[in-house]
Parts: sequence; structure tokens; C-alpha cells
Amino acid sequence: MERAVATYLEPQARLAIYAEGEFGKKHAKTAEGVIRYGRNPVAAVIDSAKSGATVREAVGLNCDAPIVASVGDSLKHSPSALLLGTAWTGGALPAHWRKDIIQALESGMDIVNGLHDFLENDAEISAVAKRHGRRLFDVRKPPMPLPVGAGLAKDLKQHVILTVGTDCSVGKMTASLELDAEAQRRGKRSKFIATGQTGIMICGEGIAIDRVIGDFMAGATEQMVMDAAKDHDYIFVEGQGSLSHPGFSGVSLALIHGSAPKTMILVTKATKTNICELPLPLPSLTTTIKANEHMASLLRPAKVVGIAMNTWGMSKEDADRAIQQAREETGLPCQDPVRDGVKELFDAIIANEENSK
Amino acid sequence: MERAVATYLEPQARLAIYAEGEFGKKHAKTAEGVIRYGRNPVAAVIDSAKSGATVREAVGLNCDAPIVASVGDSLKHSPSALLLGTAWTGGALPAHWRKDIIQALESGMDIVNGLHDFLENDAEISAVAKRHGRRLFDVRKPPMPLPVGAGLAKDLKQHVILTVGTDCSVGKMTASLELDAEAQRRGKRSKFIATGQTGIMICGEGIAIDRVIGDFMAGATEQMVMDAAKDHDYIFVEGQGSLSHPGFSGVSLALIHGSAPKTMILVTKATKTNICELPLPLPSLTTTIKANEHMASLLRPAKVVGIAMNTWGMSKEDADRAIQQAREETGLPCQDPVRDGVKELFDAIIANEENSK
Repeated sequence: MERAVATYLEPQARLAIYAEGEFGKKHAKTAEGVIRYGRNPVAAVIDSAKSGATVREAVGLNCDAPIVASVGDSLKHSPSALLLGTAWTGGALPAHWRKDIIQALESGMDIVNGLHDFLENDAEISAVAKRHGRRLFDVRKPPMPLPVGAGLAKDLKQHVILTVGTDCSVGKMTASLELDAEAQRRGKRSKFIATGQTGIMICGEGIAIDRVIGDFMAGATEQMVMDAAKDHDYIFVEGQGSLSHPGFSGVSLALIHGSAPKTMILVTKATKTNICELPLPLPSLTTTIKANEHMASLLRPAKVVGIAMNTWGMSKEDADRAIQQAREETGLPCQDPVRDGVKELFDAIIANEENSK
Repeated sequence: MERAVATYLEPQARLAIYAEGEFGKKHAKTAEGVIRYGRNPVAAVIDSAKSGATVREAVGLNCDAPIVASVGDSLKHSPSALLLGTAWTGGALPAHWRKDIIQALESGMDIVNGLHDFLENDAEISAVAKRHGRRLFDVRKPPMPLPVGAGLAKDLKQHVILTVGTDCSVGKMTASLELDAEAQRRGKRSKFIATGQTGIMICGEGIAIDRVIGDFMAGATEQMVMDAAKDHDYIFVEGQGSLSHPGFSGVSLALIHGSAPKTMILVTKATKTNICELPLPLPSLTTTIKANEHMASLLRPAKVVGIAMNTWGMSKEDADRAIQQAREETGLPCQDPVRDGVKELFDAIIANEENSK
């Protein structure tokens, strides 16, 4: 079976991260995720609005790569691939990116693309890539064929931990990555499973479940989990969307039944009031916990054992207050993985493992 | 926006229904559904194992079309399209169908195909179709672009009724079609919305939600419901899969949140013990009702108000006993739509409408 992982960019490839006009803003979460957690060295970030600064100076991430104004300016930092680092609802290719992508190909760079629009289907771009012997990595393209989910993961002895959310874009990938890192610090055989384009760009493999045909979403998840279980004891599955999101709830449920978690970590963002930008109030933590435990239990019992709260942009006082409130509402440990780490959350995962033995 | 309905087969097209080796068996449910409920006249059914009989004689359906042994033999009954009437898990094109499809195209027939494999992507078949000026209707091919679901249907005053199941292949399409017919008999402005390939073949429009990319399943459903609400008061949405099916639960939830039903009818098959052919017990009616009401309520309150029970193949005594048991377990009306009609179920739908005013 063809696998998404097979043809992905080599770990030593040096990235120019394309975030034109958006670095440090909401739509550049792919760029920031790759800089924070990615395995590839970052040669430069491209954003003419912030050029001259380093990444550290511009957005406070632990990275001294320069920000440059153009694809041409990035070349002196020897990038070997251009990674498209911003994402938009709907995932179509913005028209003004075209000339920059073509220039990068002509300059000898491969392209890493996480959009719903695949570059290999773009006649002009694929012709330029072919002419220059460059590769187009459409990371959201699912491998085919994929199986139909059969509930196989429910019998695993290995510990599967899924992040679930009150909404999309709240920090599920970050929480899963931090938990995987904590497991490794504690000497565990642990693996992060990427289910979205940024996660795939970070770890070099995975399947973007939201891009998979409905009938095969759970099967794709299941296949990755069963594969990881061969040589890992802790499997952290990146969640997507939320059971309360009217557009993405189906993807979230496919992840629950495809991965059959024993343990879930609920992820939320303290400053959010609405689901995406819709006129729908964000569900409460209690509502979300109940919904996820109920749906998981249709396949096997599973518990939400902790809250990862994204307090980005809040004062320390406000963040502490929000975290305290979540602890009181749910009776569960709550931490901001980026600000506070995930030790308490990991302890709660281990405790659930002991309890369910 | 391009629509699935725009290019579908005309209602007067005469069908040769291809069910080679399978007519009357489990995998020919598309053939039987189209014969029972379709708008197109049936010229012949092709199945060499049953040739010589009529449809009525072979499987008891209300249809006097002949069963013939081959595509060649069907020609004297003047078919204008070959409808592929069997479906297999995974939805790939069986190798032995190829020569029959090509013969049909060469004989001047269009092809109606509900498989996951699209004929337009098959180099040989699409070349033959082009050469002979015939059309290939890949009914599972979703229209693009599709929106992301936004919960729009939750504010509709029109009554949306979704069928939900204990499993796939239990009779959700049939229950929805019978309820729509009952509504029309009572003089209501009612519409059936097809969400699977057989439903689309029957009514000539719809989107196969299980074939849509995860991110757009709910949006595709929502778009069909919002469109239907313009000139209908009762909208019957065909359900797919079940919240307990480990492979298809995501599709089922996308239908719940895309259509935002006020009322649900639970569909089950009395003789089933397991989910599909998996080593997973079929969930109880009570479990299924609770799960569906819980998930729907994340968007707006909704009730399961009746059970449509498929008692195919049972004696009258066994069927009556199973129906009585379901009534006692749930306290809800229960009928086999094919054997008993749906009057009680429709009354329960109306009662829920009155109660929720």
C-alpha cells in the first residue's frame, strides 16, 4: 500500500517558510507550528512586512532564522524547499502565491504544500516543477487505497491518547506534541500521529484526515494507530475539529472511532467565545467531555482525564484564573502546555492507565 | 456552483439494470431499490443466473420487466442506459464488468455507475464512451466546490426528518422514501434528499455524502437541505451508516449536524446481530436513540420518535414479535415500512412537530 510517509521531504532539507503578509498572525499557525516543533532546519521565513528581524525578535519563538522580504532574498540562506506556511478556510491557492512558487521551483527548491488545492493538479506549476526536476509535496493528499475502519484499535493493549477539542484551532496538535515529548523525557516508547497538514509537515508523515473521503477517515486513522502500536507503548493521536463543530464533527468522530482511545485530553482556548467565527456559542467543558466520552464508549470505555488550555495572549493573572475555573468546573487537572508544560496531564494519563488495568 | 443534479439521466431514459450473478441477493440492493422506487422505466434486468423469469417472478417486486442473460439480450427491450445495480464493500470496479460496460456503450447506452471507482477516470471506458458519444454518470462523484457546514439548518422552520440506524444497510433509504410518499399522500409539500448512490439513482439528484471529503460532508448536506427548504415543508434526509459503526460513524454525524433534524426515525433490521460483518454486537435501540439525540442536541434539540424495523426474510409471527419487543423496549411506535406502511411513524413525526411549537 502506498503510504503518505514514503515520499516526504528528507529531515535535513532546509526550509524557507512562506508566510507573506501573515507571519505572527492567525493564519500563519502552520509556519509557527513548523518552526516550534518541526524536524527540518529553518533557513528563513519570507514575509516582506517583517523582513530584517529574526523569528525570535518578530514573534518570540526560539529560532534565530532571519525574516526576508522575498523568495529571491531567501536564496542566500540556502533553502532547499519552500514550505507554504499559511492556511485559509477552504484551502484554495491564493492567486498572488503563484509567481513566488514558480520562482522557488526555478531556484531549485521543492515545494511543501498543505492546501486542499494540490499543486500537482496545477498545470503550470507542475510543468515548471517537472522542467526543473523539483518535487511537489501535497501533504494533504491521502494515500490510496485506504481501508474502511473496523474497530481494530479497540483491542490494543498499547495506550492510545487522543486530543479532543471544544473547537478547531485551539491547540490539539500542540498538546499532543508536548505530551509525546514529555513521554519521551520519561523514557517511554512514544509516538505522535499527525492527522493534519501542519502535523505532517512537522514530523514528516501522517494522513490529513479532514481531506480523506468520508467512508475512509476512520480506516485511515486506524491504519496509522495499528502501525504505530507495533513498536510504541504510548500513541498520541492529534485530534481535529470538535464534536460540536457543525462542519467538522464528522471528522472528529472518525478520529475517535478510528483510534479507539483509552484516554482523551480536552483542549480549549480560554479567550474563545464562539465556534470558529459562527454565531454558535462555544460549548462548555462539561458538555464537551460528556459528548466525547459518550461517543468513544460506543466502541470502548474512554475517559477525558485533563484539560489543555490555550491561554495565548492573556495576562498571567487572567490565564491563572481561567485555568483555576476549568479545574473547578471539571475536577480535572488543567495546564497550558506551552506556558506550564504537561506534567500534570501526563500524570493523569498514567493514572487512568493504572485504573483501567 | 456546479450541482450533482444538473447532468443526471433524464426521467424517461429506459434502464437495463446490471446485476449479473447477484439479482435477489444482498449485493443487489441498488438494483432492487431502483426497481422499487425509481423514476426511470425498467427495460430489463441482466443476470444470466435468473434469465427467462420476470422481476416479479424472480424476487417478488411489483415489476414485469424481463430478466435477460446478457447486455446483447437486453437490446431488444430498447434500453437507453445501463445501470450498474450491485455494490461491493470498497466500491471498486470488478474486472469482469468491463466487457459488458464496453458492449453497452457500443450499443448506444449511457452508463449509470454508483461505485467509488469513477468510470470517467478509466482510460479505456472513457475513450469508448467518447467515441460513441455516450455519457458516463458517476453518481457518487460530488459536485465541487462544496461549503463547510455552518449549522445553518438549525434555524429552519421547515420540518427536517433524518433516518438514523443501528447499522448500515438496514433500510434507512427505504424508510425515508416511504415517509416522503406518505407525506405526499397527505398533501404535504415534501421532499426526499438522497445522500447515497442508490437514492441518487432513484430520484435523479443528490450527493453521496460518504464519497465527500471529510471537511465538506456536513456542508454538502446542509446545502441540499437549505435548498429543499425553499419550497418544501417536510424534508426527509436519507441517513447513512450509524454512530456505532467504527468505519462510518463520522459520515453519520456529519449528516446529523449538516441537516440539523428536528425529528429522527431510527431504522434497524431485526435479524442482524453484528455491526456489518464485524465482531461487534449490534447496539441496542435504546443505546442508539440516546447517542443520536445526544449528538443532535449539540446543535439543536431533536427526538427519535419512532422505529422503522426491517423484518425482511422473517415469518409474520417472528416479525410481529420483534416489532412488539421494540415497542416495549423504547415506548415508541414501530413499523416495518415495506410490510406495514409508515402511518404510525408519520403520525409520530407530526406529533413531535406539534409538541415542539
